[in-house]
Amino acid sequence: MTAKLILLRHGESEWNAKNLFTGWVDVDVNDKGRAEAIRAGELLAENDLLPDVVHTSVLKRAITTANAALATADRSWIPTKRSWRLNERHYGALQGLDKSATREKYGEEQFMIWRRSYDTPPPPIEPDAQFSQFDDPRYAGLPPEARPLTECLADVVVRMLPYWYDEIVPDLRTKTVLVAAHGNSLRALVKHLDRISDADIPQLNIPTGIPLLYELDDDMRPVTEGGRYLDPEAAAESITAVANQGKK
Amino acid sequence: MTAKLILLRHGESEWNAKNLFTGWVDVDVNDKGRAEAIRAGELLAENDLLPDVVHTSVLKRAITTANAALATADRSWIPTKRSWRLNERHYGALQGLDKSATREKYGEEQFMIWRRSYDTPPPPIEPDAQFSQFDDPRYAGLPPEARPLTECLADVVVRMLPYWYDEIVPDLRTKTVLVAAHGNSLRALVKHLDRISDADIPQLNIPTGIPLLYELDDDMRPVTEGGRYLDPEAAAESITAVANQGKK
Repeated sequence: MTAKLILLRHGESEWNAKNLFTGWVDVDVNDKGRAEAIRAGELLAENDLLPDVVHTSVLKRAITTANAALATADRSWIPTKRSWRLNERHYGALQGLDKSATREKYGEEQFMIWRRSYDTPPPPIEPDAQFSQFDDPRYAGLPPEARPLTECLADVVVRMLPYWYDEIVPDLRTKTVLVAAHGNSLRALVKHLDRISDADIPQLNIPTGIPLLYELDDDMRPVTEGGRYLDPEAAAESITAVANQGKK
Repeated sequence: MTAKLILLRHGESEWNAKNLFTGWVDVDVNDKGRAEAIRAGELLAENDLLPDVVHTSVLKRAITTANAALATADRSWIPTKRSWRLNERHYGALQGLDKSATREKYGEEQFMIWRRSYDTPPPPIEPDAQFSQFDDPRYAGLPPEARPLTECLADVVVRMLPYWYDEIVPDLRTKTVLVAAHGNSLRALVKHLDRISDADIPQLNIPTGIPLLYELDDDMRPVTEGGRYLDPEAAAESITAVANQGKK
């Protein structure tokens, strides 16, 4: 018996549409993102992949996405678990800044290092800055040293994996698990699952709103590398579009 | 330090509006119910009563109500727990029937016994009847003898209290707790909290969509009997309206 893990990246948010760095800023999905979530729920139902439990970040764009997808698949009633360890990467001092303006100000090379480098984080944000999220009540239980002020993807792997091992894997032993999260927390998880190297991970993009199914063996390793998108054509189109974004 | 417990009865559902017996049938709230839930979230925020954890039934009208209220109060991120033990009373063979037609067919006296008697359940529904919910996947983990085919309020007290003691009370020791549930599961809980007698409980009505705050002492007994509605005027109006419903 293989375990079934379904990854779902939230749909378009209000700040995606405005081209702002979001990170830990708690922006909700917009109407397009909500429609993506409903489509994701339809794909779950059509493929008879009904989650028995859902794990989300503590950010509302992932929570709204999970709620809408599960309501569509008539699975609102399943157990729900949330953790900051599934949050998007903390974007440090870039949070709240316009992406194009940042690219112009710092240049393409620095911009791409901050966006895609595995182990170079953006500059840390001041704890009292408007968009630091440092004093958000949802992190009040964490000692200050555990609340990030910036993160690179390597940091996300380190803070995400304990949740994978302690909370998600035990559920996978008996249940179909949905993880509704973010581009970078899911990239961190996929890097771990598929053993993607530090050098190769910058090229990995996960499309929004398309459930990605991993069947896992007893060692919690993918039976098929890369898993399977429930709408492979839409996923391929989205990945091509993202890959072309950087090109002039 | 008193513990803070907030009870919230879901708003109007599609079947409330159609005057059908609902019970365990999984009908969602309608637009009016959704608006009630949003208003409930505003009341929580205005009163600075922000839940740290939410408990719901496994029925979508309670889940949708909790989701909408918490989103309004910016508390979507709190831990979420669900249990069939917070479900509405199972209405047995009456589930899916029109209330007025049932009253005409069986007479006012029998009708009121089924609706309000503490310990007389309606006739059991056949497990394979359309609206039995007996084979609903959310109850698949329960052995058949634990899945009700009808319930009186006394039955609800018996199946609800273990969840109160084992899951809600431990949370109340350290957290502000929101319970989003149903007319009868909340009546069962209020009966327990306020030690209302079997003879008096038929007269208790809990309005929809108005948060009811109980402050509880160390023995988990109310500091003030009956708690406090966050919108006392609206609650009083609603209770008077319900009390007058039965009168010709």
